[in-house]
Amino acid sequence: MAATATTIKFLKEPTSDAWVEQALANLDTILLDHSHCERKAAGVALNLMFRYPSNTKMVRSLTAIAQEELEHFEQVNQILERRGIPLGPLAAPPYGAGLNKQIRPQEPHRLLDSLLVSGLIEARSHERLGLLGQHCPDPELAAFYRGLMASEARHYGIYWVLSTTYFDRETVTQRLEELATIESELLTTLHPEPRIHS
Amino acid sequence: MAATATTIKFLKEPTSDAWVEQALANLDTILLDHSHCERKAAGVALNLMFRYPSNTKMVRSLTAIAQEELEHFEQVNQILERRGIPLGPLAAPPYGAGLNKQIRPQEPHRLLDSLLVSGLIEARSHERLGLLGQHCPDPELAAFYRGLMASEARHYGIYWVLSTTYFDRETVTQRLEELATIESELLTTLHPEPRIHS
Repeated sequence: MAATATTIKFLKEPTSDAWVEQALANLDTILLDHSHCERKAAGVALNLMFRYPSNTKMVRSLTAIAQEELEHFEQVNQILERRGIPLGPLAAPPYGAGLNKQIRPQEPHRLLDSLLVSGLIEARSHERLGLLGQHCPDPELAAFYRGLMASEARHYGIYWVLSTTYFDRETVTQRLEELATIESELLTTLHPEPRIHS
Repeated sequence: MAATATTIKFLKEPTSDAWVEQALANLDTILLDHSHCERKAAGVALNLMFRYPSNTKMVRSLTAIAQEELEHFEQVNQILERRGIPLGPLAAPPYGAGLNKQIRPQEPHRLLDSLLVSGLIEARSHERLGLLGQHCPDPELAAFYRGLMASEARHYGIYWVLSTTYFDRETVTQRLEELATIESELLTTLHPEPRIHS
């Protein structure tokens, strides 16, 4: 199985076949983790708005992102309910914490890194939901994942545009290069527990 | 001017005429503060979902609330833009912190108190947006505030229903009584800076 049909802009390395196999063998857990991912993504967008209340363009764009993430969150939760999978906590894989550790604490670095890390997570989600849309044998789920792909792609585009709104292109490109390398490294070893970002 | 035409369920004391006068004399600031209130309300709903990921009914209801708050946030921000009022930080009045201090840290009290405090804030917002809808001389704003009232009323109803989902009616009623008394006390002295909850 050739996991990735297309290469996603921003990502250094494509997702491995091993992840696809792990995910397809554990679709219930992947669905529940996906629910958490959508809620977390909405939370991250909201936290950025809290932190930069004067950055009008950012606040407006992030509002739209948060709204979409909540819509997807509700959609995933409806699927979970129909399938009798109860909502509940799920230990996060090391991916998110590993990326957040890269966010430099001083401004303006903090803003740049926060936007790029969010963009990378969206890009990876886009790629992986696309893989599920392509390989998932369950037609309802496959269609659902394909439906979400476009939004995730739009989201990483928005995070990119926002970073170039507040920082010059060269600074953005250089930092993205560094963060994208780390993002791919974090996924080199498949996390033993099936997750969207295992 | 008789500030409150109707008494809002849950609230011990109606809003004073002094608040209405202060708000009408400072509509730009009230609009900006209202934007912050909507964003904060979405944040509170999201935080509760994070904290209680297994409470399915709560997660689903809070998703709907967070979505509506973000919709209102965007609507207020559009009005701010049309009026040339820039987005920006605004010091919070003591109201929110005063209420949050009442949330007991141990479970299950923490959940009950969190739901009731959110319900009380929604009830007060409902009352005050209603007063603005009634007394605001600007027809666009007055219509906007009247449009939001129904949602705020629905929200405090949802918080009430959720509290009675997870706690028995007597416990809820008794604690609400205590918190509602404190909520009204916090507003006895008008905060010098004009805010939705001054």
